[in-house]
Amino acid sequence: MSLPTARDKLLFTPGPLTTSLTVKQAMLRDAGSWHFEFNTTVADVRDRILKVAGVSRAAGFETVLLQGSGTFGVEAVFATCVPPNGKVAVLANGAYGERMVAMLQHAKIDHVVLRAPEDTPNDPAALDRALTADSAVTHVAVVQCETTTGIVNPINEIGQVARKHKRSYIVDAMSSFGAMPIDFAAASIDYLVSSANKCIEGVPGFSFVIARRAPLLACEGFARSLSLDLLSQLKGFEKNGQFRYTPPTHAILAFAQALDELETEGGVAPRLARYQRNHQVLVEGMKKIGFRPYLRPEVQSPIITSFLFPDDPKFTFDQFYRKLSDKGFIIYPGKISNANTFRIGSIGRIFEADLRSLLAAVAECVQELGLRM
Amino acid sequence: MSLPTARDKLLFTPGPLTTSLTVKQAMLRDAGSWHFEFNTTVADVRDRILKVAGVSRAAGFETVLLQGSGTFGVEAVFATCVPPNGKVAVLANGAYGERMVAMLQHAKIDHVVLRAPEDTPNDPAALDRALTADSAVTHVAVVQCETTTGIVNPINEIGQVARKHKRSYIVDAMSSFGAMPIDFAAASIDYLVSSANKCIEGVPGFSFVIARRAPLLACEGFARSLSLDLLSQLKGFEKNGQFRYTPPTHAILAFAQALDELETEGGVAPRLARYQRNHQVLVEGMKKIGFRPYLRPEVQSPIITSFLFPDDPKFTFDQFYRKLSDKGFIIYPGKISNANTFRIGSIGRIFEADLRSLLAAVAECVQELGLRM
Repeated sequence: MSLPTARDKLLFTPGPLTTSLTVKQAMLRDAGSWHFEFNTTVADVRDRILKVAGVSRAAGFETVLLQGSGTFGVEAVFATCVPPNGKVAVLANGAYGERMVAMLQHAKIDHVVLRAPEDTPNDPAALDRALTADSAVTHVAVVQCETTTGIVNPINEIGQVARKHKRSYIVDAMSSFGAMPIDFAAASIDYLVSSANKCIEGVPGFSFVIARRAPLLACEGFARSLSLDLLSQLKGFEKNGQFRYTPPTHAILAFAQALDELETEGGVAPRLARYQRNHQVLVEGMKKIGFRPYLRPEVQSPIITSFLFPDDPKFTFDQFYRKLSDKGFIIYPGKISNANTFRIGSIGRIFEADLRSLLAAVAECVQELGLRM
Repeated sequence: MSLPTARDKLLFTPGPLTTSLTVKQAMLRDAGSWHFEFNTTVADVRDRILKVAGVSRAAGFETVLLQGSGTFGVEAVFATCVPPNGKVAVLANGAYGERMVAMLQHAKIDHVVLRAPEDTPNDPAALDRALTADSAVTHVAVVQCETTTGIVNPINEIGQVARKHKRSYIVDAMSSFGAMPIDFAAASIDYLVSSANKCIEGVPGFSFVIARRAPLLACEGFARSLSLDLLSQLKGFEKNGQFRYTPPTHAILAFAQALDELETEGGVAPRLARYQRNHQVLVEGMKKIGFRPYLRPEVQSPIITSFLFPDDPKFTFDQFYRKLSDKGFIIYPGKISNANTFRIGSIGRIFEADLRSLLAAVAECVQELGLRM
């Protein structure tokens, strides 16, 4: 066990993120999971997620919270909503698209994968051709911000193709919801999945699905898993305001506080502006030091950025990572199959000044390691 | 939103529980889920769970942590460990046994249910007959402390029957692990499931499975769910010390602190003694007020106790519950099919003095409501 430090290292990752002290302090309570006061908080959180999404119950939407990480939420949509004879078209250009494929393989759900290179957005025209050719496809699934690289996929254009062909549409907006603009109507989204510890800046412990009520209610009897049954979970909330099974009470209390703080910041647009500023400062600074981003700026999100390893063969990620960690900054390894990269996130309770501190530390590391850039 | 209170109401429930302030304060940090310092904590927690269980790696055991509530952990064992042509014999005498049945139905896993009345322990002799008659059964599953009533099932005798017939043995020790004695060798347990927010007195967010390594490794290819794949989860920990998907970092930090505090208390035996004392004070006091326990003392656990509604038709649980809540005490509703009961838990960071305060409040409620006892 190492000595406790006065301050936590800052996390420049895709989450769990650096959160505000007040969000963490909201967890200094023990709430009864069956108690009406806690259930009021659950109901409030479900309502406020709809507001952040810019949708409403009147327009036919519901929020379902689910224990576990974001992956559990995505798998729950497949496990609950694809009929026994259904088929899913997955658009994949990174590890999170491929994770959807792995989920479908495990659940023995028929599927087809439309792959794009990791530096290229998914192609709505390719989907259009695939759906024209294959009438068995019932659902289309895509990741909005593919955290593997930080690339943004065109969820509106893909959704319009799905709508044209009358297929259900599932969006994994794990690392983007709460910051990047999402227009449920324009994109014709049926199910959108995100999690507590991303752009809302809560702590990990649950995911949430924003779903159109009518198609979700039509999934009766499909669920392949009890724990991951989204429809029963919705019915549980509607019956008595409770999670069916033990909720992560502390993570929910933290999330309620995080929603307050999102409101205080001014909502989704100012939060996006902060992340964009973080990203801009990061990229400009890293370029000055001599690092090159992996993606073209046109397809790059402000959420997380992949940087190529420098050409100097002396560079090792492990050494660089540990040196930065010693200085109080945690970055993220790369996950790209055909390039050596590392990643730096711009989300969480971090500001331009934090990015400038990180950049100063990166410059020091480069110097201390004697890297030729 | 109601005004925040200075102190939380005390929880007399089967969890989430009242935890120590220091356990909650351990969550005032943000840990990187990929970071080596956090992974050290994860490894430490996995080791220490084995120690609490009284087993070891040398004896062939492993701990697998899994995101989500305890239910997710139980379902993960079925989803991962039962082969495609497997069959599970579930011993059920309450809602948690029935929940296992629901899991198996969802996963389309063949099963047979051996039911006992809710006030009667599961019968090893009935299992012996069933296993003799049905060679298709590959796994036997039972709940140690059926929280529906608080009854204790004879996990050693049931395990000995399973071993005699060479079937795998799964024990749901959700509300008992960390307090009630469990002898893995004597009971011949292959998989035991518990969760963070029960007798270890952590906060909710993950479950854990103590598994024999050899049978778990033999389950390659069986997993019906990606998120609930226990074997891949184990391999993830062994590959790089990490959870495969975002862990509930804060709940893990709280759990590490809770394990420290279990050690400070002296371990499992003194903790059980405290819960037994809590239970004894509770039952004696409730009887004095005029309440009758549902179960015979011989089959009653010290974890949670079901009390019958008083005969007075004026009694309603809702009114009684709210009055107790107003006085700062949260109890739990009943879950028994054939009797009107409510439940009071004796576990968590609560002591004899807390039980005595609760009893005084119960007596006040009875008087204020004018109940004839």
